[in-house]
Amino acid sequence: MKKLEQVYEGKAKKVFRTDDDNLYIVSYKDDATAFNGQKKGTIAGKGAINNQVTNHLMKLLEREGIPTHFVEEISETETVVKKVHIIPLEVIVRNIAAGSLSKRLRLPEGTELKRTVLEYCYKNDELGDPMINEYHIFALDLATKEELDLIADYSLRINEILSSYLKDLNIQLIDFKLEFGKLADGTIVLADEISPDTCRFWDSVSGEKLDKDRFRRDLGNVEGAYREVMKRLMGK
Amino acid sequence: MKKLEQVYEGKAKKVFRTDDDNLYIVSYKDDATAFNGQKKGTIAGKGAINNQVTNHLMKLLEREGIPTHFVEEISETETVVKKVHIIPLEVIVRNIAAGSLSKRLRLPEGTELKRTVLEYCYKNDELGDPMINEYHIFALDLATKEELDLIADYSLRINEILSSYLKDLNIQLIDFKLEFGKLADGTIVLADEISPDTCRFWDSVSGEKLDKDRFRRDLGNVEGAYREVMKRLMGK
Repeated sequence: MKKLEQVYEGKAKKVFRTDDDNLYIVSYKDDATAFNGQKKGTIAGKGAINNQVTNHLMKLLEREGIPTHFVEEISETETVVKKVHIIPLEVIVRNIAAGSLSKRLRLPEGTELKRTVLEYCYKNDELGDPMINEYHIFALDLATKEELDLIADYSLRINEILSSYLKDLNIQLIDFKLEFGKLADGTIVLADEISPDTCRFWDSVSGEKLDKDRFRRDLGNVEGAYREVMKRLMGK
Repeated sequence: MKKLEQVYEGKAKKVFRTDDDNLYIVSYKDDATAFNGQKKGTIAGKGAINNQVTNHLMKLLEREGIPTHFVEEISETETVVKKVHIIPLEVIVRNIAAGSLSKRLRLPEGTELKRTVLEYCYKNDELGDPMINEYHIFALDLATKEELDLIADYSLRINEILSSYLKDLNIQLIDFKLEFGKLADGTIVLADEISPDTCRFWDSVSGEKLDKDRFRRDLGNVEGAYREVMKRLMGK
């Protein structure tokens, strides 16, 4: 398979066309941004870690019956994925209050939520990815009821699988962001990434943050935290 | 029935205890506020109009099978209502994009929504009544699934009844806010008010705003617009 021209560059990844019309190559960058692009920086080695951690978790999820866009890792920072049309929704899954939820509802960070909370944000940088609900999603034609029910169901199952897997590695899954895409035949699959960029991981014992909050909040040892996650998950 | 001490004073209404433990008296004020209390003013005659318009519409809804807190109008500005425990949710029903929805999703005011949109805000002045979704409602224990399903169902039925009724009076119902309360036995009933303070009413022909946006946006003729609504609904 041949890597062809770049079709997209996001904040943390580039996507390339290939000579197979059904496949793309994703290339992970070390660039880091926060607060809708207002804060910018670089985290050395992040691209390689996020690529490998994402693939490790996507494979785990596939084994547990969640369809994903993952096809094959071809280098430390590059992966072949199925070509999807990304559904313009960020699905946020929350087990413990943190970040924007804590701020908006004034729930102290670390408060256990009585029920898993799903939030939907409209992926639209110009609008600042506003939170929306099911009714907005249908009114804006972002997904049908059947599609959204499936996305919510997958998201809750992914949460159970990942929470249980990470618990054994002494990592508490606080919250995370998912994106889904549609294959040419309409099948919905998990896309994007699952990494310290998109999840809040707290050490179960010390409570230490092992995720992008170290970058967002200038907590130091950002690279170390990313490496620690990869080490716990993959032994390297 | 005797009016006893005041138990609550809100931005636009006072509530009094009575010698009947199941009944309250609501007294409507001319005070107007906007932007979570940042803008303050008075709209002459508003209390009397909102009281009578609310009661007129509550009676219409009761006839159509929607349970409400309405009992009896006792003066131009005062009404006996059933004592309820207010569920701390503002339910916003939207047919046409306007106000905060237009701003957040950059939908020009007047854009017809493909589907009726319901939004829930957590009634909490300190937090600025943040928008929340069903998952937050369950996690915060604000309502059960069964209660919220009923509230959503009532809200959509109320929208149909009011939209159709107002259309014949050349008023387009753009959006409105509802609040529900629980009686001592747990029954959920429509509470609060339905008035130019809580609805966006546009003249079907001219598009002229006949609601609190005239106050919020300094459009002038605020009292005239409120009086026009009462005149169309009640002939006085």
